[in-house]
Amino acid sequence: MRILVVNVNTTDSITQAIARQAQAAAAPGTEIIGLTPDFGADSIEGNFESYLAAIAVMDKVMSYDQPFDAVIQAGYGEHGREGLQELLNVPVVDITDAAASTAMYVGRAYSVVTTLDRTVPLIEDRLRLSGLWDRCASVRASGLAVLELEESPERALEAIVRQAELAVSEDRAEVICLGCGGMAGLDEQIRQRTGVPVIDGVSAAVTVAESLVRLGLSTSKVRTYAQPRPKVISGWAAKFMR
Amino acid sequence: MRILVVNVNTTDSITQAIARQAQAAAAPGTEIIGLTPDFGADSIEGNFESYLAAIAVMDKVMSYDQPFDAVIQAGYGEHGREGLQELLNVPVVDITDAAASTAMYVGRAYSVVTTLDRTVPLIEDRLRLSGLWDRCASVRASGLAVLELEESPERALEAIVRQAELAVSEDRAEVICLGCGGMAGLDEQIRQRTGVPVIDGVSAAVTVAESLVRLGLSTSKVRTYAQPRPKVISGWAAKFMR
Amino acid sequence: MRILVVNVNTTDSITQAIARQAQAAAAPGTEIIGLTPDFGADSIEGNFESYLAAIAVMDKVMSYDQPFDAVIQAGYGEHGREGLQELLNVPVVDITDAAASTAMYVGRAYSVVTTLDRTVPLIEDRLRLSGLWDRCASVRASGLAVLELEESPERALEAIVRQAELAVSEDRAEVICLGCGGMAGLDEQIRQRTGVPVIDGVSAAVTVAESLVRLGLSTSKVRTYAQPRPKVISGWAAKFMR
Amino acid sequence: MRILVVNVNTTDSITQAIARQAQAAAAPGTEIIGLTPDFGADSIEGNFESYLAAIAVMDKVMSYDQPFDAVIQAGYGEHGREGLQELLNVPVVDITDAAASTAMYVGRAYSVVTTLDRTVPLIEDRLRLSGLWDRCASVRASGLAVLELEESPERALEAIVRQAELAVSEDRAEVICLGCGGMAGLDEQIRQRTGVPVIDGVSAAVTVAESLVRLGLSTSKVRTYAQPRPKVISGWAAKFMR
Amino acid sequence: MRILVVNVNTTDSITQAIARQAQAAAAPGTEIIGLTPDFGADSIEGNFESYLAAIAVMDKVMSYDQPFDAVIQAGYGEHGREGLQELLNVPVVDITDAAASTAMYVGRAYSVVTTLDRTVPLIEDRLRLSGLWDRCASVRASGLAVLELEESPERALEAIVRQAELAVSEDRAEVICLGCGGMAGLDEQIRQRTGVPVIDGVSAAVTVAESLVRLGLSTSKVRTYAQPRPKVISGWAAKFMR
Amino acid sequence: MRILVVNVNTTDSITQAIARQAQAAAAPGTEIIGLTPDFGADSIEGNFESYLAAIAVMDKVMSYDQPFDAVIQAGYGEHGREGLQELLNVPVVDITDAAASTAMYVGRAYSVVTTLDRTVPLIEDRLRLSGLWDRCASVRASGLAVLELEESPERALEAIVRQAELAVSEDRAEVICLGCGGMAGLDEQIRQRTGVPVIDGVSAAVTVAESLVRLGLSTSKVRTYAQPRPKVISGWAAKFMR
Repeated sequence: MRILVVNVNTTDSITQAIARQAQAAAAPGTEIIGLTPDFGADSIEGNFESYLAAIAVMDKVMSYDQPFDAVIQAGYGEHGREGLQELLNVPVVDITDAAASTAMYVGRAYSVVTTLDRTVPLIEDRLRLSGLWDRCASVRASGLAVLELEESPERALEAIVRQAELAVSEDRAEVICLGCGGMAGLDEQIRQRTGVPVIDGVSAAVTVAESLVRLGLSTSKVRTYAQPRPKVISGWAAKFMR
Repeated sequence: MRILVVNVNTTDSITQAIARQAQAAAAPGTEIIGLTPDFGADSIEGNFESYLAAIAVMDKVMSYDQPFDAVIQAGYGEHGREGLQELLNVPVVDITDAAASTAMYVGRAYSVVTTLDRTVPLIEDRLRLSGLWDRCASVRASGLAVLELEESPERALEAIVRQAELAVSEDRAEVICLGCGGMAGLDEQIRQRTGVPVIDGVSAAVTVAESLVRLGLSTSKVRTYAQPRPKVISGWAAKFMR
Repeated sequence: MRILVVNVNTTDSITQAIARQAQAAAAPGTEIIGLTPDFGADSIEGNFESYLAAIAVMDKVMSYDQPFDAVIQAGYGEHGREGLQELLNVPVVDITDAAASTAMYVGRAYSVVTTLDRTVPLIEDRLRLSGLWDRCASVRASGLAVLELEESPERALEAIVRQAELAVSEDRAEVICLGCGGMAGLDEQIRQRTGVPVIDGVSAAVTVAESLVRLGLSTSKVRTYAQPRPKVISGWAAKFMR
Repeated sequence: MRILVVNVNTTDSITQAIARQAQAAAAPGTEIIGLTPDFGADSIEGNFESYLAAIAVMDKVMSYDQPFDAVIQAGYGEHGREGLQELLNVPVVDITDAAASTAMYVGRAYSVVTTLDRTVPLIEDRLRLSGLWDRCASVRASGLAVLELEESPERALEAIVRQAELAVSEDRAEVICLGCGGMAGLDEQIRQRTGVPVIDGVSAAVTVAESLVRLGLSTSKVRTYAQPRPKVISGWAAKFMR
Repeated sequence: MRILVVNVNTTDSITQAIARQAQAAAAPGTEIIGLTPDFGADSIEGNFESYLAAIAVMDKVMSYDQPFDAVIQAGYGEHGREGLQELLNVPVVDITDAAASTAMYVGRAYSVVTTLDRTVPLIEDRLRLSGLWDRCASVRASGLAVLELEESPERALEAIVRQAELAVSEDRAEVICLGCGGMAGLDEQIRQRTGVPVIDGVSAAVTVAESLVRLGLSTSKVRTYAQPRPKVISGWAAKFMR
Repeated sequence: MRILVVNVNTTDSITQAIARQAQAAAAPGTEIIGLTPDFGADSIEGNFESYLAAIAVMDKVMSYDQPFDAVIQAGYGEHGREGLQELLNVPVVDITDAAASTAMYVGRAYSVVTTLDRTVPLIEDRLRLSGLWDRCASVRASGLAVLELEESPERALEAIVRQAELAVSEDRAEVICLGCGGMAGLDEQIRQRTGVPVIDGVSAAVTVAESLVRLGLSTSKVRTYAQPRPKVISGWAAKFMR
């Protein structure tokens, strides 16, 4: 089984970290292919960049020329999932959803700890639309930017732990979701520090994708995610038609 | 006052129809500038095309080199509004929202009549996220594609009237919103046929935009719609940085 | 265009302040007529007084003997709007709704800052019923009574700014609505102090009313707001039948 | 124990029917006093009349000069309850609420069958505000006006049974609430015809009021229903101050 | 009228306290029969014990060999009500629901103060399912276990008062429900200390049960609570079939 | 990895069918152990039987004397999951939840097709409490009892297909969940007949349980699902303490 794990930003080191995390979570026989978009921002912390990422991810996936069995969109709270679901016949898993649906099996309420405060509304919106909001106790910001996670892992850990503890004590979360693809690998340390299960979205998404493939399930094509209709697509975007 | 009215598809005749409708609704002294994206699909009927349109609209607006006072995104149920709100300091009005908020002043519940069934979920999602869903009685599809509206205006009228009547009798709607930028101009006929107020989103959006400008109001920059942070943006998307 | 702006209490100086604010927000050619009810309380801070105001407003509007194009009910969170909508064929705009629907265009969530704590539930109920509650971050009380706003403008300003700041920092509001007709005119100062857009309901309502008139829209008469049925109305209330 | 049962319209024969129904449901030792408002409409089928009734009911209750232990507002879906709760120190029970809260003990979902379609939104709004909406399967209209219930009891019975049957089969209601004070007395026949429990709001309200009195409970005065503040009340309304 | 009041735990002294409280609230002529389950835990503070209690209560009620008119399940937030409703033809009242529905008549929002934090989610779930959640301001834990209420009544009182005060000041509750059958009898003292109405669920349930009986109402058998279908029931559980 | 798959009824042939289905879905190296409760009903179609099953399942699992890695409760809409989560340190997966969370990855809305109409409310309640209700388009009954599925597989197939088709055309479901453990194995045929993805809950639960184990995740013990406190448990139930 081959699963594409697509980073949403153009920072290759993050793609590599995500792919390592994904491969570690994968079952024997699952091949993980990490992809970095060809254009866009080096980190995504807002709607403008996220919309760019949405098409950059579609562009990258649609131009991948080998067969694959599933796609993981490895950005937390980003736009674009529904577009991929229309374009592809294999399952598409967003790590925002995978973390949330996994969290709900191990606790009554979960919180997400993410990077900057400005990304909180994006995550909330994505969870609302995917129907996984009801048991969300809170989405909390650590105050660190995506790229700071790589630069200052110690500081990042402390900031995330602090918010995770507040989520448990104030918001009654019983599970923590790590709300950024770039936090891959911190789950074990945060679990030890907080005493609650901690979900890494990339790992969770790998198991969801593998499960869908093994069950022979893929995106329903009867309505929302039906194949795009034939259109005249012009300008730069015409490359999507090749 | 100058208001940019941006079509979401690349069909110029639709841009012209939208701009005419907008100008007809505008107050004396309001200049309407119709813009057509430089890339994307000739009509938008799904998420893939809508995500393309999101950045095509941002691209077109950001490369407009004259001053303007507000922007109207003239697509029904399309992605992208939040990105424009981050990038701009002037008000941004989506016709989906403008139709809904206007409808709520003239009836207890409203329905949207749109084009194809596959666009219904997009409109529902947009209304949910903008907080205008609570009084939506239904979103109904006429079954006609965007471009068929232009080609067969008679047939379009009949199909829309039929769904509008069902919305009133079955779903208890008291107002109808025309759920497609391309329906601009049909409102009066449908009002006569159904006996309920009919809202054209483009016209409604013009009055909302003018009102915001006159009240000296624009997008709050304290959190969700703060200016994008400085980023390295590369590849094709680097043109956004110009 | 002539718009009736009806105060909900019997204090004439408040009517005048409201009318001035309305006129300042109005387009050229819009005539604002301020009306004071003939009976009721000199300020409205609870349900009993608000129910009295509901019929006092209907009474005043129905006995106005000149033509008019729209009515604005200039009380925040008061009863009565639906009654006016039944009785009239021109649009009716409540400032509670106008502030909220305008706020939603310039921020993801809004808070209302009102007078006494006891009026908070009234405002919440009105927003729930008009379908504009979903993006309300909070309704906060300044602790000052309606008439104290006039007597101690400085103290009022401070109390409102304090709650507005808490709404932004604690409740994640991105816009503030001034939740009392008597706060008309404070918007600019509070905007400077808090750094977020501030909505005066009276001004917002003027632009909404003007927009509805210009779009040729008025209350749907097919169900909820149909003209009252012929009835035997007796006792004091019979004056409504004249 | 003395309970005031206040009709909302000015039709004395309906007051008498309501009072009879209340007395039949009352415990030994409970005295029922039926009151008819001094002004207003002879039947309430909309917001205008309902707002008039709200103050007519308050007026009638406040001018009742004997002691009493509780008040029942015997109109379905009418305005005014919160005003009475402010003015009085004894419990206030609205028959809309009493029917709903009683229904929820004997079935998972209830439907209300009322008179004209135009009163449906009023009932829905009242149930939403009183927090009893969640288990409401539907509010259905029989199509008969309030006064027709008295004039054509046979026809009324048939029309109500038909809607009750649809509520059970289509909307999955397991209990029916009779949604009009004027339907008092029809419960037993409708129960026989539909096979589900049928709640008469007046009877239910009597038991709720008696229970509150016996438990020594009355309206909380800490916030929403605190006594009205001292005000200058003028004009016709000044009579409330006597 | 004979009402069975069934304790959910096996502690006989609690059964006696509950029965005393019930008898004190009962109308003349109502006979209260307190029942203690034959198996299960001596106090219920979690789902495992609560599920045991659910069948222990059914077992005890089904083996009671005298006629009775209603059953009260005297545990706060426990499982089992729906099972009793299926098995019996007389009304079943859970004290969780009775406290909440009574509270809603005397205040806009209510809070529940219960024992241990771990029981909070059970109470929340029960209120959600019974449709009485909408006006719940909060469910707060005093931190005392069920059996500590009996052992240290003074300490219990203080702990409950403290949470009740916070519910009023922080969560805007206007009424307090005592969230444990074992708190029976503390209502008057807590009311004096907090100044808001305080509801004892057992007392409230007695009045609800009496009201249903007097109104001739019992559980609808058309769907959710229909009599169990004939089944082969084996093993220990076969005793339910006798 | 060893996973216990516990049937909720006492019919051994259903246990065997469920276990076969589970083993077919399991990864290489996963051992499936099918368990049949020692007491209870031979099929579960209501709350009484479901409450019995809740403790019968706990009883069976707690007396299993070999190590295991996860438990699947293989009943649709049954009580008991939270009790197992308290008692165990390994993950617990209910097939109701597993089907729903899996469905949400492959379609925007899902419907459940179950057996008898009386089981519909149980399934709805379970989905509400587990936070997976938001995207549920409907729960539909085929009208066939659990044991009829085994007796008349052809008739069962037709009845389920008919409801699945209505769910797609009327309720806008894009995925179908088979709402009964006894439907295991029908998924492929129904998928072919309806053209939408069909989820078998047992298979889905196996992949969820395996994923949780592989990710090293288990039930959070900080609040709702903390280990039961030490109690005196007496009577029949004392066997749980062994």
